[in-house]
Order: sequence, then C-alpha cells, then structure tokens
Amino acid sequence: MSISAETFFLDHSAEGTLQSRIQQMVAQGILEGRFRPGERLPSSRKMAQHLGVSRITVTLAYTELVADDYMISRGRSGYFVSDNAPEPPAFPAQRADQGTVDWPRAIAQRFTPGLSVDKPADWSRFRYPFIYGQTDRTLFDSANWRLCALRALGMRDFEALTADYFDGDDPQLVEFVARQTLPRRGILANSDEILITMGAQNALWLSAQVLLNSRRRAVIEDPCYPALRNILTQSRCQLSPVQVDRDGLPPDKLPDDTDVVFTTPSHQCPTTATMPLSRRNALLEKAEADDFIVVEDDYEFEMSFLKSPSPSLKSLDQNGRVIYVGSFSKSIFPGLRLGYLVGPAPFIREARALRATVLRHPPGHIQRTVSYYLSLGHYDALVRRMSKTYHERRRVMEETLHHHDLTVAGQGTYGGSSIWLRAPSGVDTAILAEHLLADSVLVEPGAPFFASDTPPTQYLRLAYSSIPASRISEGVRLIADAIAHY
Amino acid sequence: MSISAETFFLDHSAEGTLQSRIQQMVAQGILEGRFRPGERLPSSRKMAQHLGVSRITVTLAYTELVADDYMISRGRSGYFVSDNAPEPPAFPAQRADQGTVDWPRAIAQRFTPGLSVDKPADWSRFRYPFIYGQTDRTLFDSANWRLCALRALGMRDFEALTADYFDGDDPQLVEFVARQTLPRRGILANSDEILITMGAQNALWLSAQVLLNSRRRAVIEDPCYPALRNILTQSRCQLSPVQVDRDGLPPDKLPDDTDVVFTTPSHQCPTTATMPLSRRNALLEKAEADDFIVVEDDYEFEMSFLKSPSPSLKSLDQNGRVIYVGSFSKSIFPGLRLGYLVGPAPFIREARALRATVLRHPPGHIQRTVSYYLSLGHYDALVRRMSKTYHERRRVMEETLHHHDLTVAGQGTYGGSSIWLRAPSGVDTAILAEHLLADSVLVEPGAPFFASDTPPTQYLRLAYSSIPASRISEGVRLIADAIAHY
Repeated sequence: MSISAETFFLDHSAEGTLQSRIQQMVAQGILEGRFRPGERLPSSRKMAQHLGVSRITVTLAYTELVADDYMISRGRSGYFVSDNAPEPPAFPAQRADQGTVDWPRAIAQRFTPGLSVDKPADWSRFRYPFIYGQTDRTLFDSANWRLCALRALGMRDFEALTADYFDGDDPQLVEFVARQTLPRRGILANSDEILITMGAQNALWLSAQVLLNSRRRAVIEDPCYPALRNILTQSRCQLSPVQVDRDGLPPDKLPDDTDVVFTTPSHQCPTTATMPLSRRNALLEKAEADDFIVVEDDYEFEMSFLKSPSPSLKSLDQNGRVIYVGSFSKSIFPGLRLGYLVGPAPFIREARALRATVLRHPPGHIQRTVSYYLSLGHYDALVRRMSKTYHERRRVMEETLHHHDLTVAGQGTYGGSSIWLRAPSGVDTAILAEHLLADSVLVEPGAPFFASDTPPTQYLRLAYSSIPASRISEGVRLIADAIAHY
Repeated sequence: MSISAETFFLDHSAEGTLQSRIQQMVAQGILEGRFRPGERLPSSRKMAQHLGVSRITVTLAYTELVADDYMISRGRSGYFVSDNAPEPPAFPAQRADQGTVDWPRAIAQRFTPGLSVDKPADWSRFRYPFIYGQTDRTLFDSANWRLCALRALGMRDFEALTADYFDGDDPQLVEFVARQTLPRRGILANSDEILITMGAQNALWLSAQVLLNSRRRAVIEDPCYPALRNILTQSRCQLSPVQVDRDGLPPDKLPDDTDVVFTTPSHQCPTTATMPLSRRNALLEKAEADDFIVVEDDYEFEMSFLKSPSPSLKSLDQNGRVIYVGSFSKSIFPGLRLGYLVGPAPFIREARALRATVLRHPPGHIQRTVSYYLSLGHYDALVRRMSKTYHERRRVMEETLHHHDLTVAGQGTYGGSSIWLRAPSGVDTAILAEHLLADSVLVEPGAPFFASDTPPTQYLRLAYSSIPASRISEGVRLIADAIAHY
C-alpha cells in the first residue's frame, strides 16, 4: 500500500528545522503503527509539493530516515518503510495530553451501561455453540443472496442504491411487505401504515420514543429481551415488569394505569411460551377497557415447524390498538439490520419523522436486495430449510435433555430456535457457563433476562440455531455433567 | 408470481358458510389490489390443508369465483386471478373501522413536522437540476463499487456480512479510517475514539443526545443545515442561532453560557464560507476559556479542488474539546448512510451505548464494502474525478453568474459543490423556484436554512454536483430571466 502525501501535516507551531520536523513526522507515524513495513512513502517531489517546502529538504530528511533504518530506498521504485523499522508498542501510547474537558460533567445524558454482551465474537470456533441469534453458515444460501445483492447493484436500480430517500423507503420493499409478508400474519396495511426499520430493535426503540414519556407507564414481560428493557430504562418512562407464566403475559396482572404493553405472543422471549387465543382476546379486551396500546414483537413466527403459527395479535385487533414489529435480520442474518413497524398512520407518521431525524432512512441497497430475495422466493426457501433443520435439532435436543433428566422450563409448542432450561436451585448458570467454556461449550445464562436486581440464577437458554444436530448429544452431556459436578 | 396459502386467514368470528367465507376472502384480496391479474392461487389441496377445511369446500368456492370471473382455471396449471377481475379502486379504501384509539393523546412525543423536503424524487428528469447532494450517474464508478460489494459478499467475509456485532463495528473499516482517512485531516485517533454511524446526520444526532439536555445551551450557525436544527429542536435543549459572516461563525458572538457549538469550518453550510485559521484558533481559545465543546461537521472537505483544505479544527485542538463528524455518504452516495464520529473515549463510549440501543450497529456488509472501496484506492480516484468535474462546472457557473450580473453571496474558496446566491430584495426564491420548474430548472430556496420564523427570502442555493457543465449556462440564463421578470 502507498501512504498518501495528504496524511502528512507540518505542525507550524512546532520547533526545529523543517528537515528535522519532516523526519519526526515520518518516524512518529511508524512508531504509532500508522505506517507499516513495506508501505511506500510519497515521492520526495510529491511530499515537497504537498507540504510547500523545497524538494531538497524532503530528500535530506528521507536520507536521514534511511540512515536510521526507518526507511529503505529502492532506487526508482521509491522509499519504503523498512522491515527493520522500530516496532510500535503493542498497546498504542495514549497521547500525553488528555485534554482539559471534565467529561463526567460534559456528558449530559448517560447511556452506559447499556446492552451488556458476554457472547464471544469467535463463537464459531467453539465445538458446542448453543448460541442464540447468529447465522449458521451451513444453512444460509450465500449464492442467492449474492445474486440478489448484485442485481440490486445494477444500473436499473441506480436510484434505489444511491438516492437520498429523505424520510422514505424503497417502495418495492414496502409493497412486498404489504402484499405478501403481512397477510401471512393476517394483517392488511397500506403503505402509510408501514415503516422499514434498522431491525426489530430499532422498531421497538422508535415505538418507545413515540408512545412514552416520563409520565407514562410501560409494561414489559419478566423475563424479557434485555435490549428492550434497556430501551425503556433509557426512555425514563414508568416501567412495570410483569411475571410471565406458561402461557406468556397474564393480562389480569397488568397495572391499572398501563399506557403501553410490550409483548411477544408468538414465542415469549426467552421462555418460548405461546400465548393462547383466549388470552390474546383477553389482552385486547383489557387494552380497549383500560385504553392502552400493545406493541407486539412477532419475532421468530416463521420458525413454526411443529404446527402452524397462531394468528398474530394484530390480526385479532379490531380497534387499531396493536403496533406490530417484524424482522428480517433474525431469519436472514442479524448483520442485515432490517425490520418493519406496522401501525395506524398517525403513529407511523411520528415514527417516520423521528427516524428521519436520527438517520434519514435504512440504506437503499439493503432494502432493494431484501425485496428481490423475498420476491424471488429465496426467503421462503431459506425459512423452509431452516425450519427443517431446526426441527431435527430440536428433536435431538429434547431427547438428550430428557435422557439426562434436565428440566425444560420452556420449549415453544410451535417451534423456535431455543429451549429455556432450569438448573437445580443453587446453580449459578453464569458460573456454569464460564466453566463450560473450557469444554468448548457455549451456553447463555438466564439472569440478564430478568428485571430484578437479584434475578434467579438457575436459568439458561440453549439455542439450536447454530449447532449441528450431530454435536447436540455430546454438548448436552457436557452441560449435564457440569451441572452434576457444580 | 404465486400467492402463498399462508396469506389467507379465515376469520373465525365472521358469518356465513365456510365456502362463502373463502370466496369472500379471495375476492377481497383481489379488490384490495393484493392479488393481481395473472397471479396463481394456491391449489385447492394446499388451501384446504392450510385453512383446515375439506378440499371440496375450497373447490366449490373456487368454482364460484371462476363463474364470477374473479379467477380463471387453466386445467393442470391451476387457478389464476382473471385478467377481467374487478379492478381495485385507484385509491385504496380506508378500512371502515378507524379504531378506538385517541392518537393525539396516545402519542406521547411528537417528531413532526421534521425534515421538510420539497426536492422532487424525479430530479434527474429535469434538464437543469441545480440540485444538492444527489449522486451524479456520470461520475460514480458503479463497476468498482460493485466489485467491492461482491468481494464483501464472499465466504471469506461471511462474518462481516452476517454477524451480530452488538455495539461494535467492522474492525477493518475502523482501522482504515484511523490510519488513512483521519490523518489526512491531521487527526490521530485510536479505535476507541471512533464510532461508525449511519451517515453524518446520525453522528450529529448521537452527539446532541450525549452532550445536551433541557438545561444545556447549544449554538448553531445561522443559516445552517436544516436537519441539524431539527435534531436540536427535538432534543429540547436551549438553542441559540448565531449569524455567520463571510468567515463563518464569529466566536465573539457566542453566548456566555454556551455548552456545545455545532460548526462547519471547512465549508459553512449553506454559505460555503471557510473559517480562517485565526478564527479557528480564537474559537478553540474561547472553548477553553468558557469550557464548551465544539462539534465540527467537516462535510465536503474532500472537494477542495481550488486549494488544499485547511487543517480541520480538531487537528488544532490541544485540549480534546472537538468532536469530529465525517461522512462517506456525501462523496460516495447518500443512499449509503455511512459516516463516522471521532472524539475522546468517554464521549465515544456513551455515543456507542446509545447507538447500540437505537439500532445496534450499521450493517456489516456496507462497512466492509466501504473498507474495500477505500483501501483499493477507488475512493481517492472517485474524489479526484469528482473534483476535476466540479472544478470545470464551477468555472462555468462563476462565468455565467458574472455575465448575468447575479450576486454571489458565497462560493467557497476551497471548492465545494454549490454556490450561495442572493437575489434582489423583494424576490421570494420559493416562488421563483416554483416558476422555474416549468423551465425544467431545479433550484433550492434558501429560507429553510435560516432559524428565524420570518427568514430572508431572497437567498438560493445552486449546486453543480448533478448538472453537466454543458447545461449550466442555459440553466443560469433561465434563472437570471426568471429573476428579471419576477
């Protein structure tokens, strides 16, 4: 790689001769690790021109740097950073001056600690990765995805790729979602009732901003998706966690002054409970009676391989009280960051205005690629392939969990991609998970899902979305062993 | 296209026989425009299975629909929506029931009116598009972009494409920005001082959230980028617009209780003034004396084709008081939505935590593609090509504006992509712009850039980033004519 002359700036207030300042500038770049062995420096002519100094000054500086073995000269090819140049320290030096700002005071609003993530980035190196929500390389069809992405890069889609949509979305994607995706959940919506979001989490965040303030009360399920609790904590609303049971959120336990309920009726997160129809109707009736809004996170409804998914809450809603959150990031891949929000037009209008302020719109290329991936049927094929594989993995999971007498606290009657386990009381699954790393087993401790400051510690989530069926038995055996010898 | 059986749901509370309800369901989909002529319906077998009814019921319903010319049967190929089926109304009918929610009450926080956009989406059909900030099809090198995107879709980059980075970014992109992009602006930063954002606007939004609350005072330039004013209005901070002069923001006009200053020293937006070095130093001295933070939006610094860009404000900052905002969306294409935020680690930590809550991370594939595009030198080549073309367009602009005696109020001594024009007083450029549409001329009225409720109306922005040099003279002539006959 060539180092551009434009990366050099002479500090006009610095001391020393021009030549020595140029030497120092180059040497410092090497010592800081910005210029690396083998990289070519700008020619003396270019450097002189850029810095506005005479060429001989640069040549003299370069000659000194060669003498000091920072650089080597390869005749006509030019000057290169020497292989023998001093190495930068393994940990980059903090610049001496740390500034004069009192940051704890200058920061007007704190957002840390936010999402706390202990999942190792190199999870795929583990032999038994019961990890949740990452992409299984063996299931994803990169080939078709690549074709769709490439098509969306073509000149015919130049607008969709490059244009500033301001607060708009790709009309092609919105139309597909309205005509094909939502009707599968029993939902009919016009384009002014749909907003494309940066994943389901972004949809939940937007909903919380529009529907809540410090005087309003939000209900969340307990346990629940930790990122949602984080969103609501930051929004500074009144927050009431309500304990779920084997049928999900119990409507009769909601506080009287509830303004917004966040719920996961298809698969409760993380217990995987599915809310029965009778309870869904009871929830909607209570929403009408107590005048609150329900935000339905319909995550993983596609993974219903055991039986057909129950109708979405929104499809049962006659009164326009349900805001619906869906995602493509979950089923295609999380790095996609694409989801959607469906609700009455006045609500979507506010969410759209907020999204425009925060980030204008989700990147056009991603929207168009997904639109092709959906409309060419690849998405359905992917979901079928995932469902089939998950089904088999789930079977093996259940069998071996039963064999080892482990207690399943929730396993989703429709399907899903994980099982919620309860270890014997006294077991702290955070410590258990730590121990299991040595056996190359990755499990997710359950405590972060709970709202309490002293959460139950014996739960854990075992996902089968990224572990091959052939490794499940041995992985479960290792978990059972670790519990037995806790 | 085939219509999936899964898009059908029987409403169990509806009246009528099963057969009539199926008929109605299909007919309604056609009338609502969801099912279109030529699309294939699910086979009677599949439909029966999905709905849990007998096959004969579905067949009878289908036969009725064929008789009514909603559908046609093509023997073994199956059932299709008929070309003669009733057409959906041009404007989709609002569903009769409008819900029971009092939305003006249910919405706890309003974000409309936000960004107000009058720019036509079909701007490229105009003959004289003096439009700002859209991509010029003739300058962008789709070929290299496509190659980089394709490479980033390869199996070697599977992780970067698919992985959930949580609150992290593509390390490859962050490293390139730290080693190559920022040093060109005289900035050295570690990876914990850099955050990748969804464009510069997202970077400004994140900064505002972290640095401001209702008790803090922010200074913006007047006139300024309307989206920034919108961000700050929504953040509910104390807001002080300070009038800029021909050298940009005057530090001696800042209120005493300023907490954060948002400024565009490279090219003031929209006047294109460049802040001289002496004023930059004065601003930094005042920041130190009065203990405020400066957010520097360094937009368009790449487009310095008239002379080398002046050093960034951040590169002059010895005290860690400057937060730096950069963008790739501007120079590559706005639909990309990618920028970066550079600041002291404690600040970046909070901005990162907030970003994680709002959207986790910008999509991995986009980050990796840009990383390739930069490191393979395509970006520099693009910027050189744009600069060369803009230079020529700018020359023609200046010449013809001068020829027609139009008053240039700002034109950027370094380059840029637009000229700030002042029409004779009495001219309302909003009305002028409206008139000019009929001549196929697109110009941008200046009023929305001003903070006042009664802004000056005689300014307008003429951009040359999307109009060929050959059309500029005629376009400017039309503008001059329109002004003369106003």
